[in-house]
Order: sequence, then structure tokens, then C-alpha cells
Amino acid sequence: MLREGFVCHLGVIVDGAPMVVPTVYGFDADHVYVHGSVASRSLAEGAEACVTITHVDGLVLARSVFEHGVNYRSAMIYGVARALEGTEKLEALRCLTEHIAPGQWEHARRPNRKELAATTILAVPLEEASVKVRQGPPGDADDPHDVWAGVLPMAHSWAPPVTAPLVTHPVPGHVRRRIGKPF
Amino acid sequence: MLREGFVCHLGVIVDGAPMVVPTVYGFDADHVYVHGSVASRSLAEGAEACVTITHVDGLVLARSVFEHGVNYRSAMIYGVARALEGTEKLEALRCLTEHIAPGQWEHARRPNRKELAATTILAVPLEEASVKVRQGPPGDADDPHDVWAGVLPMAHSWAPPVTAPLVTHPVPGHVRRRIGKPF
Repeated sequence: MLREGFVCHLGVIVDGAPMVVPTVYGFDADHVYVHGSVASRSLAEGAEACVTITHVDGLVLARSVFEHGVNYRSAMIYGVARALEGTEKLEALRCLTEHIAPGQWEHARRPNRKELAATTILAVPLEEASVKVRQGPPGDADDPHDVWAGVLPMAHSWAPPVTAPLVTHPVPGHVRRRIGKPF
Repeated sequence: MLREGFVCHLGVIVDGAPMVVPTVYGFDADHVYVHGSVASRSLAEGAEACVTITHVDGLVLARSVFEHGVNYRSAMIYGVARALEGTEKLEALRCLTEHIAPGQWEHARRPNRKELAATTILAVPLEEASVKVRQGPPGDADDPHDVWAGVLPMAHSWAPPVTAPLVTHPVPGHVRRRIGKPF
């Protein structure tokens, strides 16, 4: 489930109220790494965080309004977020970059000292998580309301890249290979 | 921004820790309505909530790792969530259903008293919100690292519906019309 997405929703508590921020993530066997920014200030003291990753697969159109819903897969990861420093931060940034954009760590210019200092990477242990999955047809097959019912799936894919102004290089293979691929 | 999506991430505080749950939403001029379920127990006492709606439009592949990111639009709505009852709940459920599945309120069987009692709809006022947008090419046009850079856009569209087992009705027009449409 972590492998398939790259945007998560990071939940933290700021001034006593919940705040939910979309951000990119990466992961290894032990941690999910999230790009911190806005949320980082409330997390400095080792506060609890919730990292939720959601894949939405389709709309469930049932016979009854009550059974309408969404086919989805989600993982909610709970834990204390820790802001990384030094080589640990650089390694997590490499992991995160290669997760969202495979091949870019070799292709792009790596962060210098100033850029790395301006980057916040939070690590949340992959220890406590709640995974939920809903797939398949509507659950009200025995409903007497006799109408069409089914699932309207969603298709997510990569479109052709838009080259930045003034760039004359061709689209590199590691980017071109993603065109048309589902995700 | 609210019009284009239908899954939000609802953030609440449960036992002192943040919890972020994906759920469907609808809205009118004054409120966003979210399907409550799991989160509802912590919200009964009028606790603060954060409803975040995120559209991810593309990956920003910059010359420098530091400028990598995502083109996105997000709205974070803050407020006290109120569980609806009676006709207000039914009307909000109609609004939510028609938002995620236009035409289904007329097509499907409406909720009976028992189903309505088993449904939790939370209303959050559209009063305090933070909207963020990042669009366009990478921001490091002046970076000396001379490589391809650009944006890899994502395409989201509706795929052909999968009719539920034993259903013999044809796919109705209001569902068929969505096939291939972007969202």
C-alpha cells in the first residue's frame, strides 16, 4: 500500500486542534518519511502524528443510498514523528525522492548544505498502523429495489511530461517510461 | 476546489492523538458535510476538526532535488463538527450523495428510518479555511545544473463501470455519461 502512492495526509495537533496537511512521503522497512514544512513546528517536541495514505479505486453505486461508498485502500500509521538530521536526513531524502520520482536522485543536483538545512524530514516508525480495504460490488444484492448497481472505477495514470521553459534536453528515459502507466 | 473532489481527509483528536480518516464529502454554500462513522465518537462533544481536500495535479521534476515537489491544490477547513439529525441529516445526505454520484439520489432507494439512524453526517462550517495551490514549472530555472526539468502531470478519469453480479439492467445514462471524463 505504501509503494503505490506518494502523497499522504499528515495529521498533527497544533494549539490543541487537529491539522491535516498533504505532503509527499517515502519509506523503508522501519519508517515512513514525510516532508515536514508547515507541520514541523508542532512536532519538534515529539508529538504524536498520524500519517494516512489512501488509494481511491472506485465509486460503489448500490441499489440503496445507504450502501453507497468508495472502494479504497488506506493505511493509517500512528507514532511519534522525529525530525531527522545529518546523514540520516540525507538518506531519508534520497529514499523519499526516489519513491516519488525514481531516477531523479542521480539525475538532479543533490541538496547542498543550505538546502538540506532548509528541508524538514520527519520519520514515523512503522510500528502501529491500521489498514482498511473495501473492494468489490455493492453489498446490497438482496435489496428489493430493482435497478442497475455496480462500481464505477477510477483510472489514474501519468500524462506526457511538460518540459520547463528554456530546457532543450530531451525527456530522459526514467521519466518517459512512466508515461501512460497507471499508478 | 470542493466541487472537483469527493474524498477528503478528516482530522480529529482521539484520546489526545491525531487521527486522519479518509471519507466522502459534499457541501453547500455554508457547510462541508462528511460521512462520519469511525471519527464520530470523538466529535460528539463538539470537538475541533480539520477537513482537508487535496487535488494532486502533477510531479514537479526540477534541476535540483531541493525544488522537487508536487503541483496540487488543497483546502484545509477548520471548525467544530456537528452531527446532524432529522431532516437536516437527510438533506445533507442527499447533498453528499449527489456530489459523489450525481443522479443516484433519484435512482437508488432512499434510506429508511433504520438506515438513517445508522448513518452519521457531520457538518463543518465553511468559515475558516486555508487554501494552498502550487502550479507551473519547477522554480529553479536559474540553477546551473543543466538537465531536463519539467512537470509530469497526472490524469484521473472514470473507467467503464463494472455491473454488479445478477444485475440485468443496462448502465443508466447518468453513470454512462461519466465514462472517460476526467475528474
